[in-house]
Amino acid sequence: MSRPTPDLGSPLREIASRIGAEHVVTDPEALAHAGRATFGTESRVLAWLHPGDAREVAAILTIAQRTGLPLYPISGGKNWGLGSRVPPVPAALLDLGRMRSIDHFDEELATVRVEAGVTFRELHRYLVAKKSRLMLSSTGGSPDGSVLANALERGDGSGPNGERALHVAALEVVLPTGEVIHTGFDRFDGASAAELHRFGVGPAFDGLFSQSRLGVVTRGTLWLAPLPRYLAALRFALHTSAELARALDALRDLRLEGTLRTPVGIWNDYRVLSAAGRYPFERTDGETPLPAELLAEQRAEWGGARWLGLASVYAASEAQGRASVARIREVLGPHVAQLSVEERSGDPRADRPLFDPENPGRAFLQGIPHEQSLRSMYYRKPAGAPADLDPDRDGAGVLWLCPVVPARGSEVVVATDDIERICLEHGLEPLLAIFGKSERTFTLLPMLVFDRDVPGADERALACHDAMLRELAARGHLPERLALPAMEALPSARDDHGRLLARLIELLDPAGILAPGRYDFGAGRR
Amino acid sequence: MSRPTPDLGSPLREIASRIGAEHVVTDPEALAHAGRATFGTESRVLAWLHPGDAREVAAILTIAQRTGLPLYPISGGKNWGLGSRVPPVPAALLDLGRMRSIDHFDEELATVRVEAGVTFRELHRYLVAKKSRLMLSSTGGSPDGSVLANALERGDGSGPNGERALHVAALEVVLPTGEVIHTGFDRFDGASAAELHRFGVGPAFDGLFSQSRLGVVTRGTLWLAPLPRYLAALRFALHTSAELARALDALRDLRLEGTLRTPVGIWNDYRVLSAAGRYPFERTDGETPLPAELLAEQRAEWGGARWLGLASVYAASEAQGRASVARIREVLGPHVAQLSVEERSGDPRADRPLFDPENPGRAFLQGIPHEQSLRSMYYRKPAGAPADLDPDRDGAGVLWLCPVVPARGSEVVVATDDIERICLEHGLEPLLAIFGKSERTFTLLPMLVFDRDVPGADERALACHDAMLRELAARGHLPERLALPAMEALPSARDDHGRLLARLIELLDPAGILAPGRYDFGAGRR
Repeated sequence: MSRPTPDLGSPLREIASRIGAEHVVTDPEALAHAGRATFGTESRVLAWLHPGDAREVAAILTIAQRTGLPLYPISGGKNWGLGSRVPPVPAALLDLGRMRSIDHFDEELATVRVEAGVTFRELHRYLVAKKSRLMLSSTGGSPDGSVLANALERGDGSGPNGERALHVAALEVVLPTGEVIHTGFDRFDGASAAELHRFGVGPAFDGLFSQSRLGVVTRGTLWLAPLPRYLAALRFALHTSAELARALDALRDLRLEGTLRTPVGIWNDYRVLSAAGRYPFERTDGETPLPAELLAEQRAEWGGARWLGLASVYAASEAQGRASVARIREVLGPHVAQLSVEERSGDPRADRPLFDPENPGRAFLQGIPHEQSLRSMYYRKPAGAPADLDPDRDGAGVLWLCPVVPARGSEVVVATDDIERICLEHGLEPLLAIFGKSERTFTLLPMLVFDRDVPGADERALACHDAMLRELAARGHLPERLALPAMEALPSARDDHGRLLARLIELLDPAGILAPGRYDFGAGRR
Repeated sequence: MSRPTPDLGSPLREIASRIGAEHVVTDPEALAHAGRATFGTESRVLAWLHPGDAREVAAILTIAQRTGLPLYPISGGKNWGLGSRVPPVPAALLDLGRMRSIDHFDEELATVRVEAGVTFRELHRYLVAKKSRLMLSSTGGSPDGSVLANALERGDGSGPNGERALHVAALEVVLPTGEVIHTGFDRFDGASAAELHRFGVGPAFDGLFSQSRLGVVTRGTLWLAPLPRYLAALRFALHTSAELARALDALRDLRLEGTLRTPVGIWNDYRVLSAAGRYPFERTDGETPLPAELLAEQRAEWGGARWLGLASVYAASEAQGRASVARIREVLGPHVAQLSVEERSGDPRADRPLFDPENPGRAFLQGIPHEQSLRSMYYRKPAGAPADLDPDRDGAGVLWLCPVVPARGSEVVVATDDIERICLEHGLEPLLAIFGKSERTFTLLPMLVFDRDVPGADERALACHDAMLRELAARGHLPERLALPAMEALPSARDDHGRLLARLIELLDPAGILAPGRYDFGAGRR
């Protein structure tokens, strides 16, 4: 995708006159910083724009549309492992990070409206300050990521609203031409259910702006969930692939029947180790990947299981919660080892959680931001993880894949075997999580972690990513989110999908300036 | 919306040569029959086309696109109360009723793929024949309606999958140009999660084809739910508006906290009476609407309550179900009268339901089609309801509205008062249901029922519909589905929504031939 660099001077001057020169960053050092991801990238950042509200976003888009300036919207800028702030092709960053208003909070109907820059950490603080009885679904990503962007990227999290994309409404979208629409009933002045109803009336446009380059979402309403009056964390261990397969089938059945209403996570031994501390270079004479005997030795710390799992029960009463736990014991119990249940009940508030918020796993369940699991990103860095995590800055290599597999244990096991083999073939530990956020699929989350300061590491990680994507796709296991290097790597559609997407891009973005290369599968290439 | 009648001969001959002359109906009597709804309509049916598969649908669309023949897709043709088979502007019916294949049934993952013509009745029979442990969410509409069309129209039903539009995937869509796309992962050959994942990867197009004129959905996968091993029907009564308001608040809280996971219905006295038998003309000397004293007398049959409610608990074990019922008693109990719980448990199958399937309310809960509630359509017909219900044929007047109100009891009561007043002002009984299918809103379902054989009845009903739509919209309560006369009656959007929709129509349907006037809010008018 080689494009001539546009003449920047004139559009940037015009944008500066509209949003203030102090909000148009062109300092080369800052741009180099913004253009660094957790893996090798080819594109670069042409400028860094910081609009203050949706009107300024619209103004920038209008100018860009006229002048051909490519723009790449970011919000928190914490898309670590998938591309951080780096655009697929050279572009100016349209950074929504200044847009941080939180309003329309409704304790009764469990909603709150946020601008695109509002982070998980901020929104949690807001709920604490309100002494709210509501929770936001936590992210496994950075607490400083944008909640709205995560929902639009179809990220996931903890609790009853873990499938985040299903719990947003009333999106305010600036189209690439500078026009503005609102989704659902919010397009009508004074609609009473504007923030409360999923669809509104007529065709629903929300999906167009999710994993998309068709518009910039500047605001939206998040649906929150009541904090449970009973919360149980169920941990279990799996020693063999056969146990894993049976446990996954049981978890699917529990999910389908409605006993489990929240996401389930299962982590392999490598992944568990990576969150506990850095790679034991001193014990391998600096060799990688981790030798099998060392893995087995470390694994012995938790009884030798290959996989550890965490499920949760959120209930409105102790009796409901206990009955669900009993049902889980009945269905899942026979297939797992070391099933343990830790439970709490009471009258929780955001400022008064049931479980200790310093315990990372328990924080996650209660919607409290925590960074512990992010320390895995530094697993291969000899110096380990610093206090302030910034893998872009620190050369901590991270590259994610997110393949989706039907919720059939045997099928998942074949895929996890593939993933582990391919990682090891490329000299990487297979750090792997299995995340079940809905009824009928599991998302596999292999995380390629490496030290970017080691020569050749970027290339090996990318080769591993590409091989894995290719092999999994050949089995039919397509990814549900894409890292930058995967944006054009999927097989072609068997139908007219590509043509439709290309025509939509041309219709909504005649100059092709908004996030070219982002989730367009090559359809937007001119 | 006056359009010149297109030259039909040539396109119809071409279509006949493609799909067979026997599948192109032009007999005036048949067309007059097809063009009759349950209220007065202005448009008419130009021809009645019966394609046999998606290829034939594509061929018809291609011919129509070239020749300018307007088409109006129908499936079951049972859109009673909202327009039956009648197009907003004169058009040939594109009847998908011959497309009835059911395949890809998966008991384990709870999915089944259907063509657009498959009805609720057929699919239930299919599950019975399979001795399946799965259920389809029932409809309150006709058992002979199309399941897929109901989902696309965002209809609702019973059980855990009651918000039907959230439980379909892998739509096969023929665009107005004859091109074909598949939603989600189904666009990829051999995608393992094609029918199992909600979004796929990249922008999600499903919403574009829901309540829409942008494409013809010919096939899709339905997500089923396991039949509950414990099922409870909870009935309650409400005597005053204050009780209604408090009960609605309690039901909302129970829904938000996850105790109630299925839709709740509340019916007013008029609506209950209308399902029990026809209007008592002999006791009023033929006068309408129903005198207050007669209403009070009939209401006494169930203890005098103004409203009757039904909630349900679906659980995987008796202990879970009982704990939820106890919680409902605690939260809802203090605000309602006559709270009764009827429960069953066991190992149900589609052919062996827990509750008597002849009890209409219990059939509904178990996914078993039943026509009892449809008898209300004949409330004002002196002859009452026949064995084979066909309100189009019988001049049974029915006109629905579907306004959405925030789930705040006090707000709902204001709206129900409005609705009851406006109905009575127009000489109609306010037959009213309140349906809670999601967490944050209630849908009000006033049903205008009249005898089309009474001179002036059509006009009075339409006037009532229009007044109600106007008054409710002025309070911000917009409808979530539209009857034919409402298609252009909503207020204008406050943003660029109309322009976007118009451009999408022009892009996807350059000749403007697909369902002109359907959910386009005037945007498609040329």
